[in-house]
Amino acid sequence: MEAGHKMALYLVVMAGGRGERFWPLSTSNLPKPFIPLLGSNSLLQATVARMQPLVPLERILISIGKEHEEVARQQLPQVPAENFIIEPMGRDTSACLGFCAIHVEQRDPDGALLALPADHYIGSGDTYLKTIRKGIDNLEGATAVVFGITPTRAETGYGYIQAEKPAVPADAWPVIRFIEKPDAPTAERYVASGSYFWNSGMFLWNNRTLLDLFRKFMPETHKGLCAMRPLLGRSDGEGQLREIFESLPRISIDYGIMEKSSGLRLIPAEFVWDDIGNWASLARALDPDAQGNIAQGSHVALDSNGCILYAQSGTIATFGVSDLVVVQAYGKVLVCSRDKAADLKRLVTALGPQAG
Amino acid sequence: MEAGHKMALYLVVMAGGRGERFWPLSTSNLPKPFIPLLGSNSLLQATVARMQPLVPLERILISIGKEHEEVARQQLPQVPAENFIIEPMGRDTSACLGFCAIHVEQRDPDGALLALPADHYIGSGDTYLKTIRKGIDNLEGATAVVFGITPTRAETGYGYIQAEKPAVPADAWPVIRFIEKPDAPTAERYVASGSYFWNSGMFLWNNRTLLDLFRKFMPETHKGLCAMRPLLGRSDGEGQLREIFESLPRISIDYGIMEKSSGLRLIPAEFVWDDIGNWASLARALDPDAQGNIAQGSHVALDSNGCILYAQSGTIATFGVSDLVVVQAYGKVLVCSRDKAADLKRLVTALGPQAG
Repeated sequence: MEAGHKMALYLVVMAGGRGERFWPLSTSNLPKPFIPLLGSNSLLQATVARMQPLVPLERILISIGKEHEEVARQQLPQVPAENFIIEPMGRDTSACLGFCAIHVEQRDPDGALLALPADHYIGSGDTYLKTIRKGIDNLEGATAVVFGITPTRAETGYGYIQAEKPAVPADAWPVIRFIEKPDAPTAERYVASGSYFWNSGMFLWNNRTLLDLFRKFMPETHKGLCAMRPLLGRSDGEGQLREIFESLPRISIDYGIMEKSSGLRLIPAEFVWDDIGNWASLARALDPDAQGNIAQGSHVALDSNGCILYAQSGTIATFGVSDLVVVQAYGKVLVCSRDKAADLKRLVTALGPQAG
Repeated sequence: MEAGHKMALYLVVMAGGRGERFWPLSTSNLPKPFIPLLGSNSLLQATVARMQPLVPLERILISIGKEHEEVARQQLPQVPAENFIIEPMGRDTSACLGFCAIHVEQRDPDGALLALPADHYIGSGDTYLKTIRKGIDNLEGATAVVFGITPTRAETGYGYIQAEKPAVPADAWPVIRFIEKPDAPTAERYVASGSYFWNSGMFLWNNRTLLDLFRKFMPETHKGLCAMRPLLGRSDGEGQLREIFESLPRISIDYGIMEKSSGLRLIPAEFVWDDIGNWASLARALDPDAQGNIAQGSHVALDSNGCILYAQSGTIATFGVSDLVVVQAYGKVLVCSRDKAADLKRLVTALGPQAG
């Protein structure tokens, strides 16, 4: 426990992701982490703010794609300029975290790396930090610590992690296995069992261990990382970095490393968590009015219920409608039935260049 | 017939009206006649353009409220500046037409006055002009000519005019009576009978006869008109004009004069006509797509049907919705069920200052 506290903790905030499911507020130019979905702060800003009590700014790294560097720097002026880790292109979370790991290694070979996605809703900051602290306290002797969300519904859109309840009550549970998105009856069973958790995508490693895992389970990526090491921070290294990065396999860290690793520990998380996969998910993260409407921005909802309204600017007025998503952003208006929100990509495809 | 043609015809386009039922495109600052509801032209512009083959611009008068003078002049640069008849305030159609009548009298004591509302949809320009010409040809010897629309549905939102079918086929039918908005069974009977017509609000008088009708049926207004006569065109007369105008009773020309007049002739109108009372009425004036959606402006309607979409700027995208009115204008968005469109004033009231 003491050792865990002595080890310097580096936070890697992963701000990747697509924009289709939050059109028109979010676009490929401005994916989900960068939009103020739940208030005045973007999810990225909220993620950093939430962790600041635990990690000093100089050890908060922001992993982003080249195309989002400008907006990320604008949104996080407090983060030191050299802490933005710019990916030449997207190669999924394994490449993202391997690239971050060699940056952390350069600063502190003995550091720990906490990876947090930047596009989730977290309900309670205090409980959240307590849970992260439990993870840090349980890292020593583990291959990695994962954070598992106690499921509150039979969600078929998330991955699950099965863990073993300790005989003697303890903060950390041994991980049994990672599970891809289940079907509905299976998800029902998982929720009932008490030993299945939602995979939050939040992971903690000793950074050296993480690089060892790359060597063991993703040797091709590890080779690339080794080749990139001497290029970091060199102004003439960009072209080579790009070339190597491009060659890395597009594989998630879950699939490439976590599912294959033994010795993982899971911290059951007691905070409210949601991946807010689409506009309809906002209903789980924001409080409804008496008619069950969820709203952000200026609006009037008359004889309307169950609607999700988001006005980036101007005003939305609804009258005599139910269960709609209405969004106004950048001069564009979306009106979508709530049950189609998960399928919004189809609309964005139909819009083509009009999607902006 | 020849006499009718010799009499100089003055057109009065009445561009009054409220804005609530076309919020947010229309507002009290920009009522229905001034908005481009059916294309790139406003209804006012379309009304003037439609009549230009029949009436030279120097005899086209535009009757508007003081508050809409600027926008009216902007929209009709071809109309001579002195042809805008500015009402100091709204006092319904009797005051409006009486005020116009003394203007026409000043220019030509022997002129005829054709009054047309500026906020109607007219389906066919050719048939329309033919119908107006029939009216002109039948004015001599009539107290007034009214244009009656052959009803195509049992509309309860319009006034009706009963006329007598001539024994020998003729263009003009003697008017029997004016009827206020009927209930549904009555309207059904009217449509079936063949001798009831929608009151289009389009009237034609010998201007001198019109002033006589004021003297006879609205002596108070007539007295006001006589007092205003010497003030017209005087730069120092504005205050007095305003004072007199304010004292005029708020009564429609239908109620104040037409219903009481005998010797009226009705021209059955064969053109498509609609008063476009609210957003839902657009469905009668514009062609739907294969899914029954009506749209103006940039839009994509995916898995959507029966919707009315109006994008003043930007783009509206609908997905998986039915029978909605969606309007984007001036940064405001309206999403309303079609069957609530006639009641939009309630929403505008609820919006209060947010309605803009």
